[in-house]
Amino acid sequence: MPPAKRAVVLLSGGLDSYTAAAVARSQGYELFALTVRYGQIHAQELDAARRVAAALGVERHQELSIDLAAFGGSALTGAGPVPKDRPLDEEGIPPTYVPARNTVLLSLALAWAEVLGAGDLVIGINALDYSGYPDCRPEYVAAFERLAMLATRAGVEGGRFRIHAPLLDMTKADIVRRGHALGLDYGLTRSCYDPTPAGAPCRRCDSCRLRARGFAEAGLVDPLDIR
Amino acid sequence: MPPAKRAVVLLSGGLDSYTAAAVARSQGYELFALTVRYGQIHAQELDAARRVAAALGVERHQELSIDLAAFGGSALTGAGPVPKDRPLDEEGIPPTYVPARNTVLLSLALAWAEVLGAGDLVIGINALDYSGYPDCRPEYVAAFERLAMLATRAGVEGGRFRIHAPLLDMTKADIVRRGHALGLDYGLTRSCYDPTPAGAPCRRCDSCRLRARGFAEAGLVDPLDIR
Repeated sequence: MPPAKRAVVLLSGGLDSYTAAAVARSQGYELFALTVRYGQIHAQELDAARRVAAALGVERHQELSIDLAAFGGSALTGAGPVPKDRPLDEEGIPPTYVPARNTVLLSLALAWAEVLGAGDLVIGINALDYSGYPDCRPEYVAAFERLAMLATRAGVEGGRFRIHAPLLDMTKADIVRRGHALGLDYGLTRSCYDPTPAGAPCRRCDSCRLRARGFAEAGLVDPLDIR
Repeated sequence: MPPAKRAVVLLSGGLDSYTAAAVARSQGYELFALTVRYGQIHAQELDAARRVAAALGVERHQELSIDLAAFGGSALTGAGPVPKDRPLDEEGIPPTYVPARNTVLLSLALAWAEVLGAGDLVIGINALDYSGYPDCRPEYVAAFERLAMLATRAGVEGGRFRIHAPLLDMTKADIVRRGHALGLDYGLTRSCYDPTPAGAPCRRCDSCRLRARGFAEAGLVDPLDIR
């Protein structure tokens, strides 16, 4: 049997990145999970990332901290309240957008991938339920792939990088169905942008409500019982 | 007089980023300086960055930490010795290359720029004396500019980002001459990759020797007296 190919997967502790990682694992990749504390207020995600990494049996789980809250500009890093009960299909970019977040995360994944000799990066973004974030679109992914080839020793020396965004065209219901088929335990994950001090989901932020809608549309039960 | 345009400038404490920032300032930009501690062993650069930021009269100086040393893979972050007395014009990428470093740095600059409403990023890379780093080439800069437009709210909403790399085609001698003409005090900067515990330059790493060659070719005296 040939040795497994290595992939660096961005693991937040949420449902999407868990599913994206599991898809990559099902394709034979050996997983190197990267979790970045970027100053998000919902830090319980980070414990969830550890549980998910263990459940996935990743080869290594690396945590890094970078204080994007120092820049301000996002409700997710404490600059203003997380919106509640917002119409889910509203046009435009919501206040939970973190400026350039996915670019920062992919850059870090790229740095580690280059050191590991991994040509594959996995990210759990999706364009349909993407809440209007610009860095969750297919053209963004293609541009980053191109950049990665130019940015690195591996690219210059004839290697190649591929950004896998297996959930890109999936709705939350599609994602939940796929994870269910892969036997994932979504009880390990956390999704809420603004949990209570005791760690309970608020049930009113975009993330809670997209999750609830996804399970409902898929006809499946969320082990976290967010409805 | 119209209000000054804002630019985010990556400031390392070295000679190049100081000069690039001063060029932008001479073009009328209001400077927001970003210094990233990425795990480099030559941390005296960071004190130099503060001195340089003060001398430039920047509007704000933001410092951030991100531990790229956790990934390994570079002599600059402690994975193996910094090479000494290497032929300066040798082909290939040297061990001081930090995987994807400029991509990480530009991503962070982009994040801050978006929050500030700044459309301009300034980086002091140069392609001629670039020691063979892939992320110091013009095609890399162009690819990042394209990514920035797709990655951000500002890009989506019709704004634009420009990456200024005013030193891109300059030799170290050109850079030193330009800085001299702008009245810069290079005594504030630090360049050595591997200074002594007391902070003296080693005079043998690529960075010390490129600096010495630059001052010599420009016919100018380095206030740090690296020869």
